[in-house]
Amino acid sequence: MNMLVDGEWRTDAYQTTNEDGEFERGTTSFRDRIEDDPDARFQPEAGRYHLYVCLACPWAHRTLLVRSLKGLEDAISVDYVDPFRGDDGWQFTPEKAGCTEDSVNGSDYLREVYQAADSGMTGRVTVPVLWDKRAETIVNNESEEILRMLDTEFDAVATRDVDLYPEGYREEIDRIIDEIYEPINNGVYRTGFADSQAAYDDAVDELFDALDHWDAVLADQRYLAGDRLTEADICMFTTLVRFDEVYHTHFMCNRRLIEQYDNLWPYLRDLYQTPGVSETVNVDHIKEHYYTTHPDVSPKRIVPAGPEPDFDAPHDRDELPGEPPESLLETAD
Amino acid sequence: MNMLVDGEWRTDAYQTTNEDGEFERGTTSFRDRIEDDPDARFQPEAGRYHLYVCLACPWAHRTLLVRSLKGLEDAISVDYVDPFRGDDGWQFTPEKAGCTEDSVNGSDYLREVYQAADSGMTGRVTVPVLWDKRAETIVNNESEEILRMLDTEFDAVATRDVDLYPEGYREEIDRIIDEIYEPINNGVYRTGFADSQAAYDDAVDELFDALDHWDAVLADQRYLAGDRLTEADICMFTTLVRFDEVYHTHFMCNRRLIEQYDNLWPYLRDLYQTPGVSETVNVDHIKEHYYTTHPDVSPKRIVPAGPEPDFDAPHDRDELPGEPPESLLETAD
Repeated sequence: MNMLVDGEWRTDAYQTTNEDGEFERGTTSFRDRIEDDPDARFQPEAGRYHLYVCLACPWAHRTLLVRSLKGLEDAISVDYVDPFRGDDGWQFTPEKAGCTEDSVNGSDYLREVYQAADSGMTGRVTVPVLWDKRAETIVNNESEEILRMLDTEFDAVATRDVDLYPEGYREEIDRIIDEIYEPINNGVYRTGFADSQAAYDDAVDELFDALDHWDAVLADQRYLAGDRLTEADICMFTTLVRFDEVYHTHFMCNRRLIEQYDNLWPYLRDLYQTPGVSETVNVDHIKEHYYTTHPDVSPKRIVPAGPEPDFDAPHDRDELPGEPPESLLETAD
Repeated sequence: MNMLVDGEWRTDAYQTTNEDGEFERGTTSFRDRIEDDPDARFQPEAGRYHLYVCLACPWAHRTLLVRSLKGLEDAISVDYVDPFRGDDGWQFTPEKAGCTEDSVNGSDYLREVYQAADSGMTGRVTVPVLWDKRAETIVNNESEEILRMLDTEFDAVATRDVDLYPEGYREEIDRIIDEIYEPINNGVYRTGFADSQAAYDDAVDELFDALDHWDAVLADQRYLAGDRLTEADICMFTTLVRFDEVYHTHFMCNRRLIEQYDNLWPYLRDLYQTPGVSETVNVDHIKEHYYTTHPDVSPKRIVPAGPEPDFDAPHDRDELPGEPPESLLETAD
């Protein structure tokens, strides 16, 4: 991983594991908030904001999902970087399938967007990025916060009545998002990027203990927070949908496939088949990114053949209490 | 991979892939035969021959299996090298669990055994090695040929009446051994060591086409050649028993787990549960060898947690025609 140091691109500056061989994720740099409040600096408006994402990235995927579920496609524009990230970082390669140019800033590399927001910035250049076209700066590059803002502040411009952070569930949603982050969402990276056997062993144990736990929970309820589709499911989904294709092999999270779980696997298919979700899943980009971008893990940069789980197979989860938001089901009809 | 050149150990001498990125296995050097014939140079005798093996190696495993099934443990001695193979090649590390000293030649490295047999040898230093204690030389280091010799020439000193190359089945056995070698036994290596996407794609397609074919065959018959356990099953077994633990993740043979096959998986358990087989399987050595010995594939040298298939689960294959040799079943009682 490379980064900006005082606004300059450096390829030697970033250490991802500590002296015990444990992966340590860097922090994000832009943490402003869009608020539906007349006094706020950043207010929700159609046409003002832009997302930079990589279709391979599970963090960026969260923001794409809420944009899709709430019907914010017309209100918030989006550009897609190349799934391959080389020494120059995320790049715009519009000639490649599923990728776009930088339609807002005309950059060749995503780091130029960061430099445009802060010419002296020190930090990592990551996706997602939420860009303000009017103020010409980055509002936020922390996926959980962008997810929450798009979910709660943009109802006035959303085309669908979808609330993924409903009253009465909020404490539970926050608890679950926090509880699954370290062992699962970040846990697959901690497993795959571990530089010592001890760090790997700890991470993989935590990961599968957590998966086993949620598999049991999902035996009796349709969604993580109960009978409502929420942000917690978004956060779980973007890791699970990558698991068998990438994390199992590439990151050696190979105790079990999600396909081998009694409840997580139908749960994953249920979410995938929720209207608005499958359109955001690009398995080709996901596989190309991981297998070609981490030579310290997969030095041959070869993209493997399998296992191609059938996300469209029937899930039978609709026998459990709860269903997707009504306005999503109307869309599908 | 390193090798001997004119009797000297060289670490720069061996190319494993061609210009198209395809893995090409080197040839073996010693191809003499033990024959139950008074005029033969090498005649079968108890106490005369010795095997050098690595418990991780599927080729060496074939010879251990026939030794175990026929009850040749007292007639043919064996030493076990360290599963880790570094720049100095296979090594004797008797302090390590499951490993032994070189009880015959007192070597530190297996290459010394090859040098003792031919001081000017050029070639790879591989397991298995069949050593003649009387002539003080290597008889053969080609696994298929050692398997055949132990199976067909040692009946006089075997403690069990087990014939894995029975009359009436021989043409079929030879055909199957030949048919599974390139796509399956060597195919997992061709998949994992491929240095180009095209070479990988070809190898992985051939591998799974072949596995799919044999899975279908095994729906209606207990063993590869029909109703008899034969050498063909030995050759298939040593690849299948390593598949989910190693080849699926390490060599990216990840289209399916053997556990996900309707017939190959019960077939594998049936073979594993045949008396004399499980004693020859050392999963710890298997995993340590592959994951720590190929830094061009798994540079972090970390041994993953899974998936730990349950080889002891019931297989129900005894409802099909055929059963293991009677003398093996008697042993088990």
